[in-house]
Amino acid sequence: MASPIEGHARPIRLADIAKAAGVSHGTASNVFSRPEIVRAEVRERVKAVAEAMGYAGPDPKGRLLRAGKVNAIGVGTTEPLSYFFEDPFARVMMAGISEACDATGAGIALVSAANQEKLAWNIQSALVDGFILFCIEGGSRLVDLTRERRLPFVALELGFEDDTVSAIGVDNVAGARLAARHLAELGHRRFAVLSLGFADDRTGFATPEVVRTAVYTGTRDRLAGYFEEFSRFGVDTANIPVYETENEEKSTRAGLEAIFAGGERPTAILAMSDRMALIAIEWLTARGLRVPEDVSIVGFDGVPDGALCDPPLTTIAQPITEIGRRAAHMILDFDGAVRRETMGVELVVRASTGPAPKA
Amino acid sequence: MASPIEGHARPIRLADIAKAAGVSHGTASNVFSRPEIVRAEVRERVKAVAEAMGYAGPDPKGRLLRAGKVNAIGVGTTEPLSYFFEDPFARVMMAGISEACDATGAGIALVSAANQEKLAWNIQSALVDGFILFCIEGGSRLVDLTRERRLPFVALELGFEDDTVSAIGVDNVAGARLAARHLAELGHRRFAVLSLGFADDRTGFATPEVVRTAVYTGTRDRLAGYFEEFSRFGVDTANIPVYETENEEKSTRAGLEAIFAGGERPTAILAMSDRMALIAIEWLTARGLRVPEDVSIVGFDGVPDGALCDPPLTTIAQPITEIGRRAAHMILDFDGAVRRETMGVELVVRASTGPAPKA
Repeated sequence: MASPIEGHARPIRLADIAKAAGVSHGTASNVFSRPEIVRAEVRERVKAVAEAMGYAGPDPKGRLLRAGKVNAIGVGTTEPLSYFFEDPFARVMMAGISEACDATGAGIALVSAANQEKLAWNIQSALVDGFILFCIEGGSRLVDLTRERRLPFVALELGFEDDTVSAIGVDNVAGARLAARHLAELGHRRFAVLSLGFADDRTGFATPEVVRTAVYTGTRDRLAGYFEEFSRFGVDTANIPVYETENEEKSTRAGLEAIFAGGERPTAILAMSDRMALIAIEWLTARGLRVPEDVSIVGFDGVPDGALCDPPLTTIAQPITEIGRRAAHMILDFDGAVRRETMGVELVVRASTGPAPKA
Repeated sequence: MASPIEGHARPIRLADIAKAAGVSHGTASNVFSRPEIVRAEVRERVKAVAEAMGYAGPDPKGRLLRAGKVNAIGVGTTEPLSYFFEDPFARVMMAGISEACDATGAGIALVSAANQEKLAWNIQSALVDGFILFCIEGGSRLVDLTRERRLPFVALELGFEDDTVSAIGVDNVAGARLAARHLAELGHRRFAVLSLGFADDRTGFATPEVVRTAVYTGTRDRLAGYFEEFSRFGVDTANIPVYETENEEKSTRAGLEAIFAGGERPTAILAMSDRMALIAIEWLTARGLRVPEDVSIVGFDGVPDGALCDPPLTTIAQPITEIGRRAAHMILDFDGAVRRETMGVELVVRASTGPAPKA
C-alpha cells in the first residue's frame, strides 16, 4: 500500500495533511487560515508535512466560489473617484458600506464613470458580486454597462424608476417639505435654492424647462417638496431663484454671488446638500452677513461636519450609514429579489436657522 | 466574393464595420467609446451594421491587456475598510491616490486584512496592476500574500525595511524632532506622548521592552525623534509617559485618563497623529483645562481638520496628498525599478501650543 506521502492518484486534501501530521482537521485548517493561533511547533510540523506532500494550502477561491460568491462589492459613481473620500455625504455612505463588508471580510472595488474611455473595462473587469451605484441616471452608460454584467445592483436613489433594480434612499419630497415648512413657520417669505444638478455638467439658474426635463429625479423631487410647501404658505414660487451647482466650492460660490447680486435678497437659503450649506455659511460670514440673524440656512443630508461648524447647521438628516449598510447587504445577501426601501428623514434644528429679519 | 456581412472567416474588426457603414475608423470607434459625440443618425447606422455583422464592440480588456495593464490599483490595510473613509489621514491619502487614478481612468480595489479568513482570497482575486499598502509590518500576512501575487507594491512607510519593495513616506525621526524642539523652546519640560501602536492590538503605557521590540518602526522612529531632542534639552526621557493607543477615540481617551491620573501633570502632549491630538483637545477642554494655557498639544500629519478645530492645531505636516499621488504613479507607471522616496515634513505652528505655564 502506498504511503500517505507518495503515490496519490487524487489531489492532496487538507484531511490527508491532518492525518499524516497527526493533528485534527481543525488544527490543520488553522495552520493555513489563522496561523497565529497555532503553537509554533505544531505549525512547523504541519507545514513540513504539507510541503512534503505537495499541498499548497486551501484554495479560498474554491471555497468562496462554491458558495457562488466572490466576496466583493463594486461601488460606482459618475463623479471622479476622489468623490468617495472628499465628499462628506459619500464618505459617511462608504463608511456604512464598509461596515457591512468588514463584518463578512468582503472587499470593495471603486469605479468612476468620469473617464468614459476606461469605464467599460473597469465595470467589465471588476470581480464583484454586484454593484452599488451612486449618483446615477436612468440611461447612463454606467448603468447600461453594469446591467450587461448581469449581476445584482442597487441604486442609492429611489428616483431610479426601474422596478427590475433594487434601490434604497429617502423620500426626497417629504424631506424637502420639512425644510421648507420650518423656514416658513419662522416667518421667512423670500427664499433662494442652492440646487443639486438636474442633469450633468451644467450650472446656473435653472429654468422651468430645466426642471421639467430633469434627468436626476432626486433633485426634481426635492425642489417639488420645497415648492409644494411654500405654495401652502402663499409664497409665489415662480420668483424663487434656483441655482444649479456641481455640489462643490466653485459653482456654489458662483451661485451665491448670483443670488445676492439681485435686488431683493433672500432671508433664507435652502441647500440641497450639507456640503453647499457649509460653503454658504462661510461665504455669508466672510461678507459680514450674520447666520441666522440676516440669512437662515437649511441643509440636506445630516453629515457629521454640520454639527461642528459655526453656527451648527439645521438640516434634513438621512440615515446615511444605515442606507450604506443596507445597500451592501442587498448585494452580499442577494437572494434574487428586487427590493426598494424608503428610509425616514428628520428635521434637525440647530443654530443656522432663526426668525425672519424684520423687513 | 462573399459580402462584407456574411461568410467571414476571421473575427469582425472595427475597420470592417467602418467600411460597411461608410464612416471613418475614428467615427466608428467613437460610436462605441464616446457615443454622445456622434450624431444620432450616424450612431444608429453604425450600430445597425455592427449588429448585422455580429460585432459586439471593441474589447477594452484586450486593449488594456495588450499594454500589459489591467488599469486598477489595490489598496490594502490591516485596519477595517471603514478606516479609508473615517480616518482623516487615510482619507487625504486616498484622495491623492484617487486623483492619480482619475487622471488615467484607473479603478481602485480596497482590501482589509482585518478579516484573516477572507484576506487571502481578497488579495489573490483583486484584478490590479499592483498594491499600495497602508499600516503594514514586515512579516505580516498582508505583505506575504501581496508578495505572492508577484505584482509591484508600494509601502506607505519608509520603516518597511526591505529594499526589494518600493516605499514612500516621511522622515519620522526628523518630524518628531521638530515637534519636540518647538515645545522645549517654549519652556516645556514635563511631557506625555500619545503614541501610535508599536505592535498590533495593544494599548497602555509602553515599557522600554515594548519600544525595543517594536514591529511598527514608524512609531519607534517618532518616539526616538522626540526623545533625542528632549535629551538635548536635559529632559530625563525615562520619566515621560508613553501611552500606546489604537489611534481612535476610546483608547486615546483611556490614555489621557491614565496620563492625567498621575501626580505630576504634563504641560505638553505630543500626539503621533492629528486624530489623537484633536481628541485630546476635546478631552482637555471638557475637563476645564485650557489649551494651550494649561496644556500645549502638537499633532502629527497635517490633516485639514487640524486647521478648523478650536484652538487650531500645531502639527508636523506631511505632504499626504502628494505621497498618495506618487504611490499611485509608482504602480500605474511601474517600470520595474524599486523606488524609495522620502518626503519633507514641516512644523506648522497654530494656536494649540504656547509657553509653558509658570510652575
